Amino acid sequence: MRNDAAVKTSLRSVVPPFAVMDILAEVERRRAAGDRVWSLCAGEPDGGAPTDVRERAAALLASGERLGYTAALGTAELRATIAAHYERSYGVHVDREAVAVTTGSSGAFVLAFLAALDPGDRVAIARPGYPAYRNILAALGADVIELACGPEVRHQPTPALLDAAIAEHGPLTALVVASPANPTGTVIEPAAFAELAAWCTERGVRLVSDEIYHGLLHGSARATCAWEHDRSAIVVSSFSKFWGMTGWRLGWALLPPELIAPVDALAGNLALCPPALAQSAALAAFTERSYDEATAAAARCTEHRDLVVPRLAGLGLNAPAPADGAFYVYADATALLERAGASDSVELCRRILDEANVALTPGTDFDAVDGGSWVRLSYAASRDELDGALSALEAWVAALPSP
Amino acid sequence: MRNDAAVKTSLRSVVPPFAVMDILAEVERRRAAGDRVWSLCAGEPDGGAPTDVRERAAALLASGERLGYTAALGTAELRATIAAHYERSYGVHVDREAVAVTTGSSGAFVLAFLAALDPGDRVAIARPGYPAYRNILAALGADVIELACGPEVRHQPTPALLDAAIAEHGPLTALVVASPANPTGTVIEPAAFAELAAWCTERGVRLVSDEIYHGLLHGSARATCAWEHDRSAIVVSSFSKFWGMTGWRLGWALLPPELIAPVDALAGNLALCPPALAQSAALAAFTERSYDEATAAAARCTEHRDLVVPRLAGLGLNAPAPADGAFYVYADATALLERAGASDSVELCRRILDEANVALTPGTDFDAVDGGSWVRLSYAASRDELDGALSALEAWVAALPSP
Repeated sequence: MRNDAAVKTSLRSVVPPFAVMDILAEVERRRAAGDRVWSLCAGEPDGGAPTDVRERAAALLASGERLGYTAALGTAELRATIAAHYERSYGVHVDREAVAVTTGSSGAFVLAFLAALDPGDRVAIARPGYPAYRNILAALGADVIELACGPEVRHQPTPALLDAAIAEHGPLTALVVASPANPTGTVIEPAAFAELAAWCTERGVRLVSDEIYHGLLHGSARATCAWEHDRSAIVVSSFSKFWGMTGWRLGWALLPPELIAPVDALAGNLALCPPALAQSAALAAFTERSYDEATAAAARCTEHRDLVVPRLAGLGLNAPAPADGAFYVYADATALLERAGASDSVELCRRILDEANVALTPGTDFDAVDGGSWVRLSYAASRDELDGALSALEAWVAALPSP
Repeated sequence: MRNDAAVKTSLRSVVPPFAVMDILAEVERRRAAGDRVWSLCAGEPDGGAPTDVRERAAALLASGERLGYTAALGTAELRATIAAHYERSYGVHVDREAVAVTTGSSGAFVLAFLAALDPGDRVAIARPGYPAYRNILAALGADVIELACGPEVRHQPTPALLDAAIAEHGPLTALVVASPANPTGTVIEPAAFAELAAWCTERGVRLVSDEIYHGLLHGSARATCAWEHDRSAIVVSSFSKFWGMTGWRLGWALLPPELIAPVDALAGNLALCPPALAQSAALAAFTERSYDEATAAAARCTEHRDLVVPRLAGLGLNAPAPADGAFYVYADATALLERAGASDSVELCRRILDEANVALTPGTDFDAVDGGSWVRLSYAASRDELDGALSALEAWVAALPSP
């Protein structure tokens, strides 16, 4: 018998699994078994794509036109239309050539990080934060520096935290910010954003600004586009959240001039082009009707936030830096952990799913150090789902032993 | 005035530009100006998606169903359907869990290379070859070892070439093969494939088999699925070529058990999921009507090859290893270069475009060492396009000074 040699698996593919994956699998299993389970885990709006987008896609399919490759950075028409969106929404002039259409914001991050960073380059990110930043950066060999962004800084990086990181680790090549952020929904206020951008430009640090939740804002909150302050920044955005087009896999980046050719070449090799039907359909995301529908969906998110936040205290949850946007509340669950006798948020979420039929996301997915006492509630769910989940949670908490 | 520091661009983003990009831009420019230009550059079939696929996509859009995120490795239904395709087409049993649906085969390569390779690992590829292998591998830090695969080995790797590469460079971690290949269309015969696979398994070398042109075969040629011989191989394929769905951006990989969890985790972070509409529509790629339509399109490719190959000699072109599949001829242009007084294939292709209005791809895009005397003709074009191109080429060659 032949003695075959072992075939290797890479070290860099060791990505920490998300706790929420186990929870989602369990939700799936129990729903398939006919159970009623309330999910506050979703990272996507309930509504779906605007009417004009769906109609444009249907018309294109009906035309029988072949959906072939487009240019690697997207069609000229879509790039121009996205550029015009910045004039309209921020008064920021963007050249069509600076827009790279990508396969979701995920595709934009992979290309942007490859173009901006070499292995070993240090990149600062907020902790808690969207775990894919850390995991993509690590897979591509960057040295990820997590900034401990507690509620005292509203979970967002500050020049002081950045200075401390440099003192400890050495110079940074890039800083990733997200405003509004996942999992906290907090926004970097305009003056603070200007300060962060100046901090970056003065030090030659590449600012990477995740603006995927722009447009989803509560009350008077205002989200800043990084290009209002720093034209060497990479801006990443998407049709997924504001326009509710997650499954269409279409996003974009705004690129400073020196990154356009590198990202073009990388995109041609790593992705060929973004999905063609989505590119054509997305032109209709910028009609007045589409803006109106997306804005109405954003207003529903604000209603949902206003429904959730006042009820947190009764659940033993505390959001010291409540959301300015997106559709998440990131809550300190210390009181609830104690009352439920749970050792950490993973155990707590597991028990809440088992006993209250409500799915939450443990904070450990966003913060490996302090996330054990935090949970994320997503109110992207429908109103019925949200009402059902809150009632079930309240009933479960009420049945716990008194504090 | 503030003295801002310079912001870096990565070294790894320096990807060599494709000569064909300049040619395609010129084709675009001249067509926009109203000129008739014949293109034999396309890497995509002329026909487009099967009827059932388009109808299924249209029905889904009409239903108003939200297109949200799917599981990172694709829907369970599509994974199962792709698995069944291997039973049908190769008699190879594939577990549903081994199928990773990806954003085109491009997405599969990025994930597969990340999961299988660490920076500095040596990977052998054929030269000439699809340039994205080299460029993705280089961007991800692999050490690319090019095997000089001339016409004497029908442009395909052999154990002898691999042994020589190891003797020169040291042990290999992986070997990438493509059969049929781009740009040559040559197939690795079943016995030779078995030999290559055994060479890999004996040495613990991960075989990565690009099977995107399977189904597009001429005459009696037979394409081997790597899993017929090596279950530790990564098989990459796609809906793009056989089913004509390039712009839909949907492909897949077959993964050995130890790579399923790593690729799942990487996909969730780097891509979230493949396009949802394409995933649902692609279920209809496996109906009898879709197989029939795709098979008819493949037969047209064979007709086109039979039209092109006999006319090569008259053009001063020579394909010593003519295509067994795909829709490319890779031809030695030495005689034509001499007759036209062109210094290399880049200059030749430029002149042919300027003077004969025909777009070809210079071999330099596929082979940086020897490609200067080779050109690639794609006969994926429509019959009219192909006829027009060949006539224009023949007229141009006839007008050249006599040899």
